[in-house]
Amino acid sequence: MDKLIEKISEKGNPTVAGLDPRPSHLPPGFLDRLPPAEAYLEFSLGLIDALADIVPAVKPQAACYEALGSAGMSVLEKTITCAREAGLYVIGDAKRADIGSTAEAYAEAWLGDGAFSCDAVTVNPYLGSDGIIPFLDAAKSRGGAVFALVKTSNPSSSELQDIDAGGAPLWMRAAELAEKLGGDSIGIHGYSSLGAVTGLTHPADIRALRMRFPHMFFLVPGYGAQGGGASEAALAFDSRGLGAIINSSRAIMCAWKSRGGDYKTAARAEALAMRDSLRDALS
Amino acid sequence: MDKLIEKISEKGNPTVAGLDPRPSHLPPGFLDRLPPAEAYLEFSLGLIDALADIVPAVKPQAACYEALGSAGMSVLEKTITCAREAGLYVIGDAKRADIGSTAEAYAEAWLGDGAFSCDAVTVNPYLGSDGIIPFLDAAKSRGGAVFALVKTSNPSSSELQDIDAGGAPLWMRAAELAEKLGGDSIGIHGYSSLGAVTGLTHPADIRALRMRFPHMFFLVPGYGAQGGGASEAALAFDSRGLGAIINSSRAIMCAWKSRGGDYKTAARAEALAMRDSLRDALS
Repeated sequence: MDKLIEKISEKGNPTVAGLDPRPSHLPPGFLDRLPPAEAYLEFSLGLIDALADIVPAVKPQAACYEALGSAGMSVLEKTITCAREAGLYVIGDAKRADIGSTAEAYAEAWLGDGAFSCDAVTVNPYLGSDGIIPFLDAAKSRGGAVFALVKTSNPSSSELQDIDAGGAPLWMRAAELAEKLGGDSIGIHGYSSLGAVTGLTHPADIRALRMRFPHMFFLVPGYGAQGGGASEAALAFDSRGLGAIINSSRAIMCAWKSRGGDYKTAARAEALAMRDSLRDALS
Repeated sequence: MDKLIEKISEKGNPTVAGLDPRPSHLPPGFLDRLPPAEAYLEFSLGLIDALADIVPAVKPQAACYEALGSAGMSVLEKTITCAREAGLYVIGDAKRADIGSTAEAYAEAWLGDGAFSCDAVTVNPYLGSDGIIPFLDAAKSRGGAVFALVKTSNPSSSELQDIDAGGAPLWMRAAELAEKLGGDSIGIHGYSSLGAVTGLTHPADIRALRMRFPHMFFLVPGYGAQGGGASEAALAFDSRGLGAIINSSRAIMCAWKSRGGDYKTAARAEALAMRDSLRDALS
């Protein structure tokens, strides 16, 4: 996780900006002027251009591009390449999981040299180690990282994740699995290559995770549009102000809706406001 | 699930053939003669041609195509289109899951009119209803289906799926969730639009699931290369011989390795042998 931590320190900003192009997220006129795939590309590259000197990382959402088929996946490739060329850390939000040689194929896709070559990728832990290790091995071989879903921010996450599993909720067992698998990859800043996704809509859970797993880096969705603020986000960090990156997707990407004006200027203003709020909360 | 059940009855064969192109699965010469994406396309279409009059369904594995990036995803689009034109039911093995509008984007991709337009898709249940309903809604609107992972066939599936969750393993809770969500979509043959993936490596679990969930259709991996045989597979069926489809990927696709000769002839022979074994076990 060292590379991500160093990029966060350089920018003084533990924010990852989501890139989730959907028709309703595009500023007016985009879809009149351009075919969908070209509109998504222009929007994605525009956001990267607007944010590259403010945020250390972007998180393209695979589903949004995949909805346009192979044309959308080609846009995703270009978006990832452009973000990395701009010096950004790229977390592919793919939530993939499979087993054996199939998991290896996904790991090649997301953490290999070609295709969707990200610095990190999100994975789903339901299949156990077999669904995580191929990604982790690929990540470790090139200084990348993996984030396993632990406690997600959606309302129905309680249905399975909160089930009592021998005195602790299932999500705690998923976190324990991630701690075990990541144990041999702790970097110079004290964090392993296998982090956890844990939503900001459950602040008590984040606090419990931070105390219990000192070597686990958190990717925290739910800031802004989903309701969490900087004081809740601060619970995810250690005493050095490290250990987490806070995601904002709609609040930054669709800032044009609330702030008006050009979408790039609005996204930039929103990202600066978020950065300053997080700096205040962590100081 | 009616459409799949009718296709199974037409062929008298509850087999779905996996399409998992990987370099090691291609017959000799393919990768010398063709670039990877073209090799995957020729192999996929060749298997469809060899099997279309024997099996009712194919299951392309998203990861294998995704490993080649957008070029691979273009091959996947062509493979799905070709399979449907050949009258085959197509189950996209994508194991996707996300929440809200992101899950809707995946559902558009896999069960919409464009892109990877399958009859059914596999999903991961870890996120709860939010990660399943958008797929189920898309499937119901067009007579398709969804298969939620319940008990997978990999060795580490026990790590989370077998955790005791209040007197039953977690996988049973996932099955209960699937039963509840699918309850309003039971078709004329008695099965809901939300089925379950349950591996053949756990025959006792399949038997328990078959007894407990009479309206749940099973997609059963693990036949052949992963070790399960026709007698174990028979446990997944109801007294009418309905209620399940058995997947074979490597055993059919790579039959050229054991049987020799042309890969299409070998795949065809293997699929016929599997069909006859299942017919015997179910008679």
